Amino acid sequence: MIQVAVLGFGVVGSGVAELLTGRGEGQNRPADDLLSLKYILDVRDFPDSPFADCFVKDFSVIEQDPEIDIVVETIGGASIALEFTERALRAGKNVVTSNKEVVAKHGYRLMELAREHHVTYLFEASVGGGIPILRPLNQCMAANEILEICGILNGTTNYIFTRMIAGGLRFEDALKEAQEKGYAERDPSADIEGHDTCRKICIMASIAFGFHVLPDQVQTIGISQVSLEDVAYASALGYKIKLLGRATKQEDGTICAYVEPHLVSLQDPLAGVEDVFNAIKVKGNATGDVMFYGKGAGKLPTASAVVADVIAIGRQMQRSAYRPWQPPRPEATVSADAIRSRFLVRVRGEDLPLGEEVTLAQPIPGEKVMRTPAMTRPELETRLQQSEVLSVLRILD
Amino acid sequence: MIQVAVLGFGVVGSGVAELLTGRGEGQNRPADDLLSLKYILDVRDFPDSPFADCFVKDFSVIEQDPEIDIVVETIGGASIALEFTERALRAGKNVVTSNKEVVAKHGYRLMELAREHHVTYLFEASVGGGIPILRPLNQCMAANEILEICGILNGTTNYIFTRMIAGGLRFEDALKEAQEKGYAERDPSADIEGHDTCRKICIMASIAFGFHVLPDQVQTIGISQVSLEDVAYASALGYKIKLLGRATKQEDGTICAYVEPHLVSLQDPLAGVEDVFNAIKVKGNATGDVMFYGKGAGKLPTASAVVADVIAIGRQMQRSAYRPWQPPRPEATVSADAIRSRFLVRVRGEDLPLGEEVTLAQPIPGEKVMRTPAMTRPELETRLQQSEVLSVLRILD
Repeated sequence: MIQVAVLGFGVVGSGVAELLTGRGEGQNRPADDLLSLKYILDVRDFPDSPFADCFVKDFSVIEQDPEIDIVVETIGGASIALEFTERALRAGKNVVTSNKEVVAKHGYRLMELAREHHVTYLFEASVGGGIPILRPLNQCMAANEILEICGILNGTTNYIFTRMIAGGLRFEDALKEAQEKGYAERDPSADIEGHDTCRKICIMASIAFGFHVLPDQVQTIGISQVSLEDVAYASALGYKIKLLGRATKQEDGTICAYVEPHLVSLQDPLAGVEDVFNAIKVKGNATGDVMFYGKGAGKLPTASAVVADVIAIGRQMQRSAYRPWQPPRPEATVSADAIRSRFLVRVRGEDLPLGEEVTLAQPIPGEKVMRTPAMTRPELETRLQQSEVLSVLRILD
Repeated sequence: MIQVAVLGFGVVGSGVAELLTGRGEGQNRPADDLLSLKYILDVRDFPDSPFADCFVKDFSVIEQDPEIDIVVETIGGASIALEFTERALRAGKNVVTSNKEVVAKHGYRLMELAREHHVTYLFEASVGGGIPILRPLNQCMAANEILEICGILNGTTNYIFTRMIAGGLRFEDALKEAQEKGYAERDPSADIEGHDTCRKICIMASIAFGFHVLPDQVQTIGISQVSLEDVAYASALGYKIKLLGRATKQEDGTICAYVEPHLVSLQDPLAGVEDVFNAIKVKGNATGDVMFYGKGAGKLPTASAVVADVIAIGRQMQRSAYRPWQPPRPEATVSADAIRSRFLVRVRGEDLPLGEEVTLAQPIPGEKVMRTPAMTRPELETRLQQSEVLSVLRILD
C-alpha cells in the first residue's frame, strides 16, 4: 500500500480524503486500491469526522514517518504551505498540491528540490480545477511547439461578466450576487483584480515554454473598471467581454504573458464559455487550436485532480500507461435499445400518434411532426406501428 | 538515443517522420533530443525523400534489430498492421499507433501481449487526432467514476451537417463539397455510415469503463438519411443535428455505447462545434462535465499525438512527470506593452482620435466610441493623450 498524508482539511483537503477512501457522499469505492490515507494535518479538531483517527497537529509526525510516500498539500497561501512542501520533499516524500500561489511563485525551485531528492512534485489541480490541462499540455502536446495559451481561468469573474452581459446587472450588483451564491469570496480581490488568473497563466506558460514565468513578470489588469456601457458597445460589435490570461511566443522567441479583460468574437469558442465555467485554448504548431472546458473550481473537481496526481505517482513504477482493460464483457454491454430519450418524429398524414406537435413557420403539407416524451426506441416503434414514418431523430437531453 | 521505426509512409507516417526529425515544413528542431528515426517501412520507393536513407521493405529488418525500441504503426487497416504490431510486441518493442480499427477490434489482446513482453502499447492518436483525450481520460480523471462520454468524433460528418444547417445544402451536395475540399474520401462510407465514430467510441468506452467494448456491440446509425426537412424542424426547436458517439453507464452498472445522429440543444457546448472540428464531453462523478475540443484529423495534428506517445515512452524511465522548467529568464519575458491588438476605445466629447466609429442603436450622448487598427498599448496611449478616455478594451483577434 502507498500511504498518503493530507495537509489541511479545508474544502479541497476534505474532498481529497473522501475520494481517497471512498467515504464521501455518493461514493462507494476508494479511488485506487493501492492508496491508503494515513494522516490529516490540521490545527483544528474534527471529533465527529469519519476521518477522526487520521488527524495530527504536528507536521514532524508526517515528516518522520518512513511509511508516508505522498504528501498532499491543500493548505493554501505561500508561507506555511511552502515550508511544509520543502520539508516533505527534503524528507524524500512525493508532494501533490492544488496551491497555485506556491507553484506560480516557487515551482522551479520546488521541482529542483524534488529532483535532488528523487521524488516528484505534481500540481494538476492548481490550474482549471478538475479540467485536465497541465498533463495534456506537458505530455500529449509534447511534440508541439506551443505558440499561445489563452484562457478563461477564473470562474468568479466569468460569472460576473455573464450576469452583466445576459442579465444587465452592473458590476457591483453582479459581484454581490456572486458572493451570495458562494461563487465569490467575501474579500474578492484575488479574483476581481486578476491575481488568481495571473498565477494560473504563469504555471501554464512555464510548462509550455520551458522556463519559470513569475507572477511579477505578468502585467495584470482586473475587471472592476468594466461598465455596462462597455458591455453594450461590445455586444453591438458582436463581442463578449472575458477576462483572459494569455501567454504568447513572439516571433523573436520572447514570451509575453499578461492578464486583461478582452473583447472576444462570438465566433471564438471562448465566447460561449458562460457562468463559472473555465476554458483554455492552446495553439500548437502541429495541432492548431485545441480547447479544454469544464468547471474550474469546486471541492470534488479540484480534489479529483489532486487524487489523479496521487494515482499517477502510485502507477509511476508500473509499465502500463493505460489503466488496463479487461476482456470484453457481453453481459455488461447493452444495446442502444435500452436508452430512453425524447425523439423528434415526422410522419406522413394528419394523425399525431404521440407527443407535442411541432410546426414550422411555413408548414410542410401532408406531414405531422412531434416531439415525444422520453422512451426507448423499441417503445417508440411500437407506438408508431400504424404510421408512415418519414424520420426519427434522437434528442440529446 | 532511443531508435524509432515508422511503418507506413502515408499521411500520418510522413508527419511522424517530419516531427521526429524536425525536417518538415515550418519546423526547426526535432520533437525530442532523445529520439532518433532509424527506419521507415513502405512497399513504395521514395528516392527523393529527405528520409531516403531510412527506407526498408522487409519488416524483419526492424523486428530483428535490437537497437529499435519503439515501432510506430501508421499503416492503417486491420490485417498487415495487426500482424506487424503483434510481431513487434513479441520482439520486445514498444508500439505506438494511430490505427483506430486495430485498437477498437484488438486493443485488449494487444495490451495483454505488450504486458507479457514488458513493453507498452499506446494509441493517443487513434481518437481525436491532435486533441489530447485518452491520456486525460485515463490519468487526469483517474479519481473519477466516468458516467458518460459523448462526442462529435468525425470531422467529415460534422462538416456535412454544418453545410446542411448553415448553407442549406442537401446531404448529397454537402458530401460532394466535402469530397472536393479533401475532407471526405472518395469512398466515404466509413465516415458517413458511422464506422469511424464507432471505433473511436469503443476505444474511449474501453478506457473509461475498464473492459473492452467491441465495435459489433455498438449499434451504429449513419447520417445519410438526414434530410433538409429534419434540419428545418430541428432549427425551429432550437437544436442542431450532430452525429454523436455516446457511451453511458446505466444505473444497473451496464454500459451502453452507440452511434446515432442526435438533436443537440443550442445551450450544449457540443452544438457550437462546427466544420471539421471534433469535441468530446466526458462526465465524471467528481469533475462534472469536461470537454475537449480541436481538429480531430489531419497530418500534423495526428502525427503530433503519435510522437507525444513516443516521447512518453522515452520519458517513462525518468522520474519527472513534467518536462522540467528552467529558472526564470527576465530577458526572454516581455511586457504586455509589446502585444499589438485592436482596441475598443470610448472617449468623452465629439472628437474621434483614430479608427472606425462605433455607434449604438441608442447612442450615449457626449461620447465617441471607436475600434482602432492594431497597435501596442503605449502607441494607443500616445494617440489618446489629448482625449478624456472613458474605457479601453483589448480585442482578441
